[in-house]
Amino acid sequence: MATIKKGILERLNAREVVIGDGGFVIALEKRGYVKAGPWTPEASVTHPEAVRQLHREFLRAGSNVMQTFTFYSSDDKLGNSTEALKITGTQINEAACDLARQVASEGDALVAGGVSQTPSYLKCKSETEVKAIFKKQLEVFVKKNVDFLIAEYFEHVEELEWAVQVLKTSGKPVAASLCMGPEGEMHNVSPGECAVRLVKAGAQIVGVNCHCDPMTCVKAVKLMKEGVEKAGLTAHYMVQPLGFHTPDCNCQGYLNLPEFPFALETRSLTRWDAHKYAREAYKAGIRFIGGCCGFEPYHIRAVAEELAPERGFLPAASEKHGMWGASLEMHTKPWVRARSRRDYWEHLLPASGRPMCPSLSTPDT
Amino acid sequence: MATIKKGILERLNAREVVIGDGGFVIALEKRGYVKAGPWTPEASVTHPEAVRQLHREFLRAGSNVMQTFTFYSSDDKLGNSTEALKITGTQINEAACDLARQVASEGDALVAGGVSQTPSYLKCKSETEVKAIFKKQLEVFVKKNVDFLIAEYFEHVEELEWAVQVLKTSGKPVAASLCMGPEGEMHNVSPGECAVRLVKAGAQIVGVNCHCDPMTCVKAVKLMKEGVEKAGLTAHYMVQPLGFHTPDCNCQGYLNLPEFPFALETRSLTRWDAHKYAREAYKAGIRFIGGCCGFEPYHIRAVAEELAPERGFLPAASEKHGMWGASLEMHTKPWVRARSRRDYWEHLLPASGRPMCPSLSTPDT
Amino acid sequence: MATIKKGILERLNAREVVIGDGGFVIALEKRGYVKAGPWTPEASVTHPEAVRQLHREFLRAGSNVMQTFTFYSSDDKLGNSTEALKITGTQINEAACDLARQVASEGDALVAGGVSQTPSYLKCKSETEVKAIFKKQLEVFVKKNVDFLIAEYFEHVEELEWAVQVLKTSGKPVAASLCMGPEGEMHNVSPGECAVRLVKAGAQIVGVNCHCDPMTCVKAVKLMKEGVEKAGLTAHYMVQPLGFHTPDCNCQGYLNLPEFPFALETRSLTRWDAHKYAREAYKAGIRFIGGCCGFEPYHIRAVAEELAPERGFLPAASEKHGMWGASLEMHTKPWVRARSRRDYWEHLLPASGRPMCPSLSTPDT
Amino acid sequence: MATIKKGILERLNAREVVIGDGGFVIALEKRGYVKAGPWTPEASVTHPEAVRQLHREFLRAGSNVMQTFTFYSSDDKLGNSTEALKITGTQINEAACDLARQVASEGDALVAGGVSQTPSYLKCKSETEVKAIFKKQLEVFVKKNVDFLIAEYFEHVEELEWAVQVLKTSGKPVAASLCMGPEGEMHNVSPGECAVRLVKAGAQIVGVNCHCDPMTCVKAVKLMKEGVEKAGLTAHYMVQPLGFHTPDCNCQGYLNLPEFPFALETRSLTRWDAHKYAREAYKAGIRFIGGCCGFEPYHIRAVAEELAPERGFLPAASEKHGMWGASLEMHTKPWVRARSRRDYWEHLLPASGRPMCPSLSTPDT
Repeated sequence: MATIKKGILERLNAREVVIGDGGFVIALEKRGYVKAGPWTPEASVTHPEAVRQLHREFLRAGSNVMQTFTFYSSDDKLGNSTEALKITGTQINEAACDLARQVASEGDALVAGGVSQTPSYLKCKSETEVKAIFKKQLEVFVKKNVDFLIAEYFEHVEELEWAVQVLKTSGKPVAASLCMGPEGEMHNVSPGECAVRLVKAGAQIVGVNCHCDPMTCVKAVKLMKEGVEKAGLTAHYMVQPLGFHTPDCNCQGYLNLPEFPFALETRSLTRWDAHKYAREAYKAGIRFIGGCCGFEPYHIRAVAEELAPERGFLPAASEKHGMWGASLEMHTKPWVRARSRRDYWEHLLPASGRPMCPSLSTPDT
Repeated sequence: MATIKKGILERLNAREVVIGDGGFVIALEKRGYVKAGPWTPEASVTHPEAVRQLHREFLRAGSNVMQTFTFYSSDDKLGNSTEALKITGTQINEAACDLARQVASEGDALVAGGVSQTPSYLKCKSETEVKAIFKKQLEVFVKKNVDFLIAEYFEHVEELEWAVQVLKTSGKPVAASLCMGPEGEMHNVSPGECAVRLVKAGAQIVGVNCHCDPMTCVKAVKLMKEGVEKAGLTAHYMVQPLGFHTPDCNCQGYLNLPEFPFALETRSLTRWDAHKYAREAYKAGIRFIGGCCGFEPYHIRAVAEELAPERGFLPAASEKHGMWGASLEMHTKPWVRARSRRDYWEHLLPASGRPMCPSLSTPDT
Repeated sequence: MATIKKGILERLNAREVVIGDGGFVIALEKRGYVKAGPWTPEASVTHPEAVRQLHREFLRAGSNVMQTFTFYSSDDKLGNSTEALKITGTQINEAACDLARQVASEGDALVAGGVSQTPSYLKCKSETEVKAIFKKQLEVFVKKNVDFLIAEYFEHVEELEWAVQVLKTSGKPVAASLCMGPEGEMHNVSPGECAVRLVKAGAQIVGVNCHCDPMTCVKAVKLMKEGVEKAGLTAHYMVQPLGFHTPDCNCQGYLNLPEFPFALETRSLTRWDAHKYAREAYKAGIRFIGGCCGFEPYHIRAVAEELAPERGFLPAASEKHGMWGASLEMHTKPWVRARSRRDYWEHLLPASGRPMCPSLSTPDT
Repeated sequence: MATIKKGILERLNAREVVIGDGGFVIALEKRGYVKAGPWTPEASVTHPEAVRQLHREFLRAGSNVMQTFTFYSSDDKLGNSTEALKITGTQINEAACDLARQVASEGDALVAGGVSQTPSYLKCKSETEVKAIFKKQLEVFVKKNVDFLIAEYFEHVEELEWAVQVLKTSGKPVAASLCMGPEGEMHNVSPGECAVRLVKAGAQIVGVNCHCDPMTCVKAVKLMKEGVEKAGLTAHYMVQPLGFHTPDCNCQGYLNLPEFPFALETRSLTRWDAHKYAREAYKAGIRFIGGCCGFEPYHIRAVAEELAPERGFLPAASEKHGMWGASLEMHTKPWVRARSRRDYWEHLLPASGRPMCPSLSTPDT
């Protein structure tokens, strides 16, 4: 069946919506398989059933992309986390590819091999050394024949350019995604300039992920698009934001919020927030729309449901979900029945139940 | 291995802490396997891997009780939900027992067969008719040889008495749990009186679950305990509250809050809230401590970690969790490292990121 | 003109609404004439124009009672506050009577001589000693021929009984008001019992003031009324609550809130809150309706406007105030014009503009 | 005594701090003498004692400027408001000058004649017609020999230029103040450009007032200063912001907030907010520091107290105010005594007591 699937570029060229998946490390931390701090993906080897299950939930929710659970799985990052386990980065990456492929083959999803920023870059290692790390990861992805590649969660556009330059050698489509808001990348490179550099480096898809909330990320991608178009270039656009409301976080992202990473609950998106996000991203011309940390399967389902009119179909998980609360129609209490309509949920301003807590925080620095 | 496990009463008689599990319907709704509204558990048959995975996560988090995923699985409730699927309540109940037993056998957990309130009671069916429903469910539990029985999520003490009377005929230990706060059951029966009636009906363990937040539920169980002791009786106590902050909900519980069931995110407990709850429940003399709707595996892990000093051991999932944020100790940013201590998380007042939203709601009626 | 005014009891016996005034010490602290901490009323002597002006504003707003500005003006309380000024309590009380009379004579208002709790009682002075203090104050009120007497701001019902016993010797009507919520007075005397004791001591009007917010105070007075009626007695009822929202303060009142006394702004009632309060008090059968700390002239005007249909007239200050925002009708901006209606202001949930601040505080103790 | 007072420019040239007054229309609306909507100052004629009292409170609080209560008192604005009263604009302006002078002579304050924007400008009347209005007002100020002139509450820089051009013909110093935030004036003229135009028109003092909260206004004045300096010009700077927190209002100011004008209580500054504002304004190089709508006498006192170290003296009203809560030192309750220190009030995050209300609003448009 995989052989007849359309590739990522075919889909995007046809202006189809491609729905990404959500955040694995935050979800699996709560499920007991990832340690906050290191955030490494050894569960691909040690607890494959847990990783597989999360892939399946995203697939059911409508994801067209099974991103290999290989976040932070370069050898320079894994270090102590997996040493005692005697697991290598290559083992993790291979196992992750197999899990993603297995689930992707159960539906209409592609496998994307994923790389992320490296400690080596931050330690000022040379371009050669950093590229060698990406090359090693790429070898696994080529061997396992992933459908395309995503270089995601990069704070520095220079390192991301290097990653793209390595990944494009495979001949597979490359998506490149930075962590940034509309102010641009940390060293004050504007979103437009970042996008142009990434396209020139060889990325066919560019965008942002993590660090900021949905509306902030969409704004940043809009600026990328403007920059690319102004430069007379073309690209596809992706966005995979936080599943949290973070209007108070500065350009360094939600890591600086006092609630990170163990008290973010109150900031979580509702499914209705995810609806609004999906519409906004679509209107901005973005066609690869997914999520990052905090995006759970039901948020992805909401994205798929919001864009069902455009796509013409609902995801599998919608068999267990009435659109806009429709499943409450038969409730015995009339005031709960009254919640079975779009207007209700679209306008609800949910209370926190925490009157001792503020609405916004001051970011740490 | 199951043969050498201590039974529920042995544990409670020895004043051991027994950790319950969390809420299946809310968690599986988000994962895509339960429909809000009907809230029925046919996934035990249709998607056993998803149910098994959630059991495993709770087991890893420290649960000593695998409650069969048989909520609302009486034939009079299942009705339309499963008709089209040609699945009977008995099939669901059998499959649920098998899943719970399989995972329980992987660790130190018991299987509890679960029954909940019936539509028949609300429709004023006779005691005979209602008891027949519980009897039919009990037959499966007896056949599958569960370790004990829990009658949970009852709004009316009379129906719960009937359930207890049926369940106790099996000779297995019976736990009975009402949905109520400190004001008592809906028809104004006080917690103390409820508890006395349930003990007299044959329950060895009594308590409350769902509908109210942790501190409210603990208060209600305290009143049950006082009532039982005043009556010269003895019992064990259980509490399985919501994983949501609901100080604004009235005695009919969180169903009346405008956010139920699709915008409860902001009300979710943090793991630190779960710590406080576990301590409070323990201090109140409650020894069967778990969760209901909104309790995710990491909340149960927090309960197990809070009570680790008393119990002498940590749950399996703690291998992926530093106590009190310890895993942030090695973070590169000093202000994130500063969060790797108990004092920080115990006193944090998390912001909602939603300045347009209120702190409390007015319950619907 | 004063000779033809109806007395306080005539009015209340006729079931007329008598509107009290607002809080002098908090208002004059902001205007620069009272020191927070001592809260003494020497401004009656040192800055009579400021005290007179505030009386006038309340009169214009609809007050029927000019309470002499003699709060805390017993010699044992004044002590250091006025020593350097060489002003005696008697001088203050006399000046205050003159100011109240002057303004009362400008409209339909009565003069009420006011006494409040004494440090002597708290220092366990004898009944004789405490009563001597009230007697000394009463002498001034008799000499200045006030229309009736109010013993207000008492935390202990026993001391208030003593005050009533002294004041009634004058033959003038006596109102007695405690600081308490529905839980009753500090030593756990219920509102009902307090009221009965005060009526038996000789008060014709009983009620509560200060310490709690409007709805809380109304509840407490309701309980007083129930107690009096159950005892087969009769009385009139008064309520003069805080002009602040204090749902989070415990029985010791708003002094224990962290914001007291210099950061209470965010808790201030709007005029619309005052409307609701007035209606609620009226419905509870209370006919002497005023305010205490935080009640500004415009709050009193709102009380008068809310009860205008029952009374048949508006206060003088309403010439400068359109009911329910009517004066915005001619605004040039259509969205401001849209605010010129009752429905708008009744349902508005005003934002604090302070997203870093919580909704509720934990009282200090 | 008035003859020996230093003039406004002498003070500012000497880098002295000149403290302005607060907002008359909002304060007098609450006191019952101004009607919201028209906001006209006929009380200068009809209730001089109320206007005089407010002047006195500001003087006591530390104001060095008694601004004539002549807001909106041009004939084209007064119209219906005063027609029935048979009072002319000239009568109001004359009375206002007399009141301001009387109180100014009681302390170290100057009289500033004030003009504000006109309906004629908004109705597109010609420059000649609009200037004629300012001329007529100026005649009174010249006749009454005010110390200097303030053209304040202008939304359009062009109209303000016209006003300045008229006022400077008197030979008296002229201050010119716009309603704007850092984004600039409504037609998108930047603060810097506005300031340059006003200086060129003849204003010796330029700044902003009303519409935005203190920190926003200070930011705007900083930009004005930068613009003036960049243009090689010199000026003095003034700021008279709202006494409300309005982070959520857009460039059209707080009129667009749903709470305007009858539910702004929760947004009121505390005195500690006023301290912060005064310090920030001083650090920005602004030396004429006052307030507008929402600034009450105690806020001005806080400004004077914050800058007492620089100025070397405290205002008269500080005899009734311990710095930083010092007057609570002798309180009987230890937890209230604990509030008698700077650190406490500087860091307090005051609760609203309104858990059903949001933190921020969406401005109307």
